[in-house]
Amino acid sequence: MSNWEKNVRKVVPYVPGEQPHEADMIKLNTNENPYPPSPKAAEAIRRVAEEDTLRLYPDPTAAELVQAIADVYHVSTKQVFVGVGSDDVLAMAFMTYFNSDKPILFPDITYSFYDVWAEEFRIPYEQIPLDENFCIVPEQYFAENHPNGGIVFPNPNAPTGVELSLSAIESILQNNPDVVVIVDEAYVDFGAATAQPLLEKYENLLVVQTTSKSRSLAGMRIGYAIGNEKMISYLNDVKYSFNSYTMNQTTIAAGAAAIRDVEYFRKTVKKVIETREWSKEELKKLGFSFEDSKSNFIFATHKSVPAGKIFQALRERHIYVRYFEKPRIDNYLRITIGTREEMQTLFDFLKDYLKEG
Amino acid sequence: MSNWEKNVRKVVPYVPGEQPHEADMIKLNTNENPYPPSPKAAEAIRRVAEEDTLRLYPDPTAAELVQAIADVYHVSTKQVFVGVGSDDVLAMAFMTYFNSDKPILFPDITYSFYDVWAEEFRIPYEQIPLDENFCIVPEQYFAENHPNGGIVFPNPNAPTGVELSLSAIESILQNNPDVVVIVDEAYVDFGAATAQPLLEKYENLLVVQTTSKSRSLAGMRIGYAIGNEKMISYLNDVKYSFNSYTMNQTTIAAGAAAIRDVEYFRKTVKKVIETREWSKEELKKLGFSFEDSKSNFIFATHKSVPAGKIFQALRERHIYVRYFEKPRIDNYLRITIGTREEMQTLFDFLKDYLKEG
Repeated sequence: MSNWEKNVRKVVPYVPGEQPHEADMIKLNTNENPYPPSPKAAEAIRRVAEEDTLRLYPDPTAAELVQAIADVYHVSTKQVFVGVGSDDVLAMAFMTYFNSDKPILFPDITYSFYDVWAEEFRIPYEQIPLDENFCIVPEQYFAENHPNGGIVFPNPNAPTGVELSLSAIESILQNNPDVVVIVDEAYVDFGAATAQPLLEKYENLLVVQTTSKSRSLAGMRIGYAIGNEKMISYLNDVKYSFNSYTMNQTTIAAGAAAIRDVEYFRKTVKKVIETREWSKEELKKLGFSFEDSKSNFIFATHKSVPAGKIFQALRERHIYVRYFEKPRIDNYLRITIGTREEMQTLFDFLKDYLKEG
Repeated sequence: MSNWEKNVRKVVPYVPGEQPHEADMIKLNTNENPYPPSPKAAEAIRRVAEEDTLRLYPDPTAAELVQAIADVYHVSTKQVFVGVGSDDVLAMAFMTYFNSDKPILFPDITYSFYDVWAEEFRIPYEQIPLDENFCIVPEQYFAENHPNGGIVFPNPNAPTGVELSLSAIESILQNNPDVVVIVDEAYVDFGAATAQPLLEKYENLLVVQTTSKSRSLAGMRIGYAIGNEKMISYLNDVKYSFNSYTMNQTTIAAGAAAIRDVEYFRKTVKKVIETREWSKEELKKLGFSFEDSKSNFIFATHKSVPAGKIFQALRERHIYVRYFEKPRIDNYLRITIGTREEMQTLFDFLKDYLKEG
């Protein structure tokens, strides 16, 4: 190793999920929405391309996008932070709020980026086991039981899809007045309750959402956080000292258009939920079991055939689902909810495959 | 202050330059290119809007953009890193390479983000004074004279526009084998020599460029770094652990199209250089002096009228230039090179204004 390498920050590189590109594939592996975004989003992007503004810097405050979020969620623009996907928002939030010597807490089975950020920013952390039904046990997050430097969890949790009730979230907030609590609501629009109503009562709460799932805009990378003005102001200070202009012109325009098209959003979310509920019935018939998902995926295990085997068989048929070779969940598949037709193809294949097996 | 605020990272917020929006304004304050980007960039954005792919995540490796950069600069794709503007690239590079207890070194008069990143990431730093002609003195950066944890400087320097010769850069590299040296070439295409030829000889060199200036794509936020494979691999490890998908679909497509359109790039850069050389003559006639700029701006001081006063007078006429109220440079204006017509309007106004004054 050369001398210059001694002072390099060395991290175990995070490996993003595979992005296959076969023409006939059915892609149920990265929780993308099966429906396109609001036509108004594509229209907004086209408009940017046609205006003679690309040579100019974008608005550093992304005011058009921030205003759309503030309007739709009935909060002040000073309560809104935007970033390059909820990953950027969460990374900035970790860097801003988690600077204690005490460990931050998050579930043992959860979004796989939390420990990556903690390692990258050298934040001590402790993973709290979910119970045997993949539920978060609120008491284990209380400061008196687990002294901590902050808390983060997804609701619904990933990759389990299990919702934590608002009253349970409130109990965690009540018992952690001295640290920041981040609720990561990437999948909340598919049937869980948002923690936003708790913002008025708890100034240490940050609610993070994304346009990647329920607004079908994964390709544009837009995440946002809502919190009280003081919280958002700290977050913006750190962000502006990192990169003043994170949101480009097409992102600002497309995000604002998608957020404002509430009718389209409700319609497509409803279709995903309907397909999910029907898929639950079909999966049960096929011998799968799972906790009740409130997200756009189902985390399922089969009564007799190992998940890893099913995963490989599906892959060979160019049906991609997600399989995590991790403790406690290595017999589960995370299946994104596609269109009804895509799910039918999946179930038809599984019916034959499981019969043979 | 609430208890939760005690562990918040507190930074002096960076304030981005103003982005005025008067219809009649002449905007010469943020070094944007007066010409639009290659028509192929806008066309690429339109194509993304029309394809049914926005619901899907972008390619995390941004392969299409990385390949375009590798092809045009004749390097391997493993030598290329891309980010959300060169600010993102530089921030990631600071975080990756500058982890020594010794201070990093950069000029006292330079890009105003270097000390902001050092503060944000808690990197010790020392600012080395430029000489009286605003030149970097290479010997002051030699490890034997200033033990250091890394070096970063722009070439040409900002906001002075002064170029450092390749032999001077090589002497800095020769005398700093144990740390990373970053050459920030945001403005290099307007007439300075790139340090890329030194990459073969010095594995601790990182060259950072952007599409915001010479490719007229400030609105899309695309920066890149070229270095040896090992350097780039460390940088990617840190980046993937921060946010796997920083480049969205429109960014990847527009950036690749702009980078590949070498003919258009050469044509517009040539026009900016011609206008700059003519502007130098006009400014001299008006009583301004300045070092020889190799960038798309001129950093000028007037023989009798204070810069702050001229700045205000221009502002009232809706002509925006940049004025830094900082030691050593508070009698200078940084004037971006606009179109010939915009510059003529500026000079006509200054002629009248300086006569009166």
